[in-house]
Order: sequence, then C-alpha cells, then structure tokens
Amino acid sequence: MATTVSELQINLDVAIDILTRFLVNEVRKAGFERGVIGLSGGIDSSVSAFLAARALGPDNVLGVLMPYKTSSPASVADARTVVEQLGIHSREIPITPMADAYFAMQGEMSNLRRGNVMARLRMIVLYDQSEVFHGLVIGTSNKTELLLGYGTLYGDTASAINPLGDLYKTQVRQIAAALGVPEAIQRKAPSADLWINQTDESELGFTYEQVDRLLFYLVDERYSIEDCVALGFERSFVEQVARRIQRTQFKRRMPVIAKVSQRTIDRDFRYPRDWGL
Amino acid sequence: MATTVSELQINLDVAIDILTRFLVNEVRKAGFERGVIGLSGGIDSSVSAFLAARALGPDNVLGVLMPYKTSSPASVADARTVVEQLGIHSREIPITPMADAYFAMQGEMSNLRRGNVMARLRMIVLYDQSEVFHGLVIGTSNKTELLLGYGTLYGDTASAINPLGDLYKTQVRQIAAALGVPEAIQRKAPSADLWINQTDESELGFTYEQVDRLLFYLVDERYSIEDCVALGFERSFVEQVARRIQRTQFKRRMPVIAKVSQRTIDRDFRYPRDWGL
Repeated sequence: MATTVSELQINLDVAIDILTRFLVNEVRKAGFERGVIGLSGGIDSSVSAFLAARALGPDNVLGVLMPYKTSSPASVADARTVVEQLGIHSREIPITPMADAYFAMQGEMSNLRRGNVMARLRMIVLYDQSEVFHGLVIGTSNKTELLLGYGTLYGDTASAINPLGDLYKTQVRQIAAALGVPEAIQRKAPSADLWINQTDESELGFTYEQVDRLLFYLVDERYSIEDCVALGFERSFVEQVARRIQRTQFKRRMPVIAKVSQRTIDRDFRYPRDWGL
Repeated sequence: MATTVSELQINLDVAIDILTRFLVNEVRKAGFERGVIGLSGGIDSSVSAFLAARALGPDNVLGVLMPYKTSSPASVADARTVVEQLGIHSREIPITPMADAYFAMQGEMSNLRRGNVMARLRMIVLYDQSEVFHGLVIGTSNKTELLLGYGTLYGDTASAINPLGDLYKTQVRQIAAALGVPEAIQRKAPSADLWINQTDESELGFTYEQVDRLLFYLVDERYSIEDCVALGFERSFVEQVARRIQRTQFKRRMPVIAKVSQRTIDRDFRYPRDWGL
C-alpha cells in the first residue's frame, strides 16, 4: 500500500471522536439504541462495525453476514473475525436461495445485473433484521464510492445513517489502522465480491490512492478540470472522473418529483430528519 | 366516493400537460427514451402508466406485474387490462419464489415485515427489468403516501422519476377520471395488497378525502396545528397526522452522512441531477 498523500491525511483522534459521537447522537435522535451492519469482511463494513461497537456498546450492535454461494470463503471468515474481536451479535443469512430463485426465472444475466440483484437482496435482509433487532441500519459506503457512483442504488448505498460517507477510501484505511481492524482485512484488495475475482481497482481502472487525491481537489477544493490538469493529473483521467461524478448524481439524490403544487417534497418541503412542527 | 373538496380541485388540462412534459424531459435528460412501471392494478400505477404511454408512446413503456401468491387475482386482472388498453409492453414476474425462499428461513413474521420484504423484492425486479428494457423506473407514489410515510423505503417509494409525488390521492383520482383509467380501477378501495383484505383507509384510520384536505393546509398552506383546529379539524386528528409526517421524514431524505470534511454529500455537495461541471 502506498503511503497516504498529505492532502488526505486526517487527524485520527478528532475524526474517530466525531464519528463516534455522530453514531450515538443519530441513533438516539431516531429513538433507538442499537445498530445493524451488513458485514462483508471488507474494510469499510469492518470500520463501521468497530465505530458502532465503540459508540453504542458491542451488545447494541448486530453484524449480519449475507454470503452468496460464490462469495469468497475468506471474506466470510474475515467478517466472523470482526464479530468475535468486537463481541457483537451476529446472524448469518445467505442470500443464495433468494438470488437463485430469481436468476432461475431469467435467462443469461450480466455480472452487473446479478451484482445489483445481490446487493439489493442484502439490503432487504439487513432492513428486515434491523426490524427484529430494533436497530438502525448503519451504512458502510465511503465518499470515494459515493462520488464515483460505484455502488448499487437501493442496495449497498442504502442506510439510515452513514459514518463513512464523508471519508475517502484512503482515509477509511487510516481509521482502520487506528482502530485495530484485523491486518488481513486492512491488507486485502478492495472488492465488492459480487463475482469471482472482482476487485474494485481493476474494475474502476485506477487506484484509490490516485482517485482520492483527484476527488479531493475536484470536490473538496472545488478545483476546475483545468486546475487539476495544471496540478499534474492526466487530462483524460480528470475528465473521466468528472464525467463519472456527474453521470451518477442520480444515485445521490431522491427520486425527482414533477412539481405541480406550491410545496413539493424534496424541493420546497425539505426539512432535516428531526425537525419539529 | 365523496365529491372532491374545492381546495384539492386541480386544473386537469394543465396538470396532465405538466406531467406529460415532465416525463418526456426527465427521461430524455437522463439519456433514455423508455420507462418501466410496476403495475399493481391500483389507481396510482395505472395513472403513471397512462401518463407514460401518452408521454413516451406505448412502445416505449414496459409494465411489470409482480404478484405474490396471495395477491388478489382481481388486481392482476386489472393490471392486465391497463396493459391491453394502452398497448404497452408487459412482463409478469411473480415474486413468490424469492419471497418464500426468505420467509422459509425466518420464523414467524409480522405482516409489516412480510410486506416490506415484498415491496422491496418488487423494487429489485423492477430495477433489473429496467436494465433489460433500457428504461427509467417511473414512480407511482402519491403525495399523500409520501407525506404520511405510508410506503416502504427502498421499496415502492423507489424510482428514478415520479410524476405523481406532488399530487394528493384525491387529485390522482381526478387525473385517473380525465385520462380514462378503467372504471373498476377508479372505484375499488385503495390497497397495498400486501396481505389479504388490507385496505389503506382501514390501516390508516382515516379516509383520503379527510387527510388530503388536512395535508393541504398543513403542508401546502403551512398552517399551524392551531390554525387547522380553528378551521374545524379535530385536534387529535391534526396532531396524529403532524406527528406522522415528522416521524417519517427519514423516508424522504437520503441517508445522513457524518460530516468530517468541508464538502459533504447531500450537505454542501447537492447539485441537481443534471448539473454540468
């Protein structure tokens, strides 16, 4: 793993403190005490679980393992290690029977279609189990994935509250190291594990180190494409990433409603979640 | 059906024109020409389909019927009538195998849990079929349901674009009559059909005529609870509805992200879907 470039270096004590308080506050404000997390064995869901256990107490956290039959056994083992290390509750509910029931009704399906179905089935299981556990679904999508739209709408990006959504992948790695997430999880290549040998970086065509630095300038610093090129980024890379952010904006917004009244949901009617009448 | 009270009377020609243009514009802006709608046989999805066929042409619309084994056969028949009357494409994909695969793994489940699983399975099928048909998912949730949170998050409320989200149920009825939606669909009691004999109004505890008028004053006119009581609404009814709007706000917002950077998704980074860099 390359060393993290300085732009993306975060103050770990401050960040972990903010994220812990965020989880406590948001869970309580919603009238809950518990949280539910889908554990894939990857670094993001592991960090979410570490933060949730710290914020809410291990007894108030449920990790749900939802393997498909092609999921890597190493991933499932890594998720189990997180459960054991934290002492949180866990349930293992394979999505194979549901997924295969649908796949059997369809003809040939692309990896993309199958992957989306699987990510959304996991959302269903997670939300249903959150009802049983009386907890809020805690998200695991990081800022890199969200900005690149590299996730399934109504699937892995669905949650009630998300402690990681403002942290780039390389920053999640810093937090993982500080929290003591198992080494094996920190070291392995990021993958959605939706099909065999899938890795994020080969699918995206660039590394997280590369894109996080660019995203920092494009999004956080509001640099223009020209500014980023002047900074030394390759023009084609900058344009590709900028287009990708733009094209996937629909995944970061609520459905667009046709405006016909003077007060339209998500337009003129857009309170925070916890406003009072 | 009671006559619609004047506050909620809409100019039908204008409204239908706005909704039709909305569908054309939003579908094209997203780079598509086609739309996909989940048809339940109810009035909302029927009106969405009528509007989509008018806006995009019947050949560019796919209606997907997704019955569960307990779904009312009359509902399926009504959905088929809509398909035939409009001349749109259709597919029938029962969710029974997927739903039962999950239910079999769980113990006793409440109607609410089963209903949520079913609504979300329909979202999965609809989104997967939209990929095959190369169309956008067109929503069917009306303003009454959205404000009351009477729908499943990431289930029936999930869509790309929603022509009905700014119309109260009683206004959807006016549009249905104007568009010539089959009489049987206009007349039957609204129901999510998630379990046998479910009807919206018995579950909610009030009629759409009653609540739409109250919502109009509370939301569109920004009346206070006291103002509504002064207008003649029963205090307990007003308070119940106000609480319900507030309590379900989370369903009308994106997941809450912990802010740690200077530019956070859905906070400082909140462009329309179609902004340009």
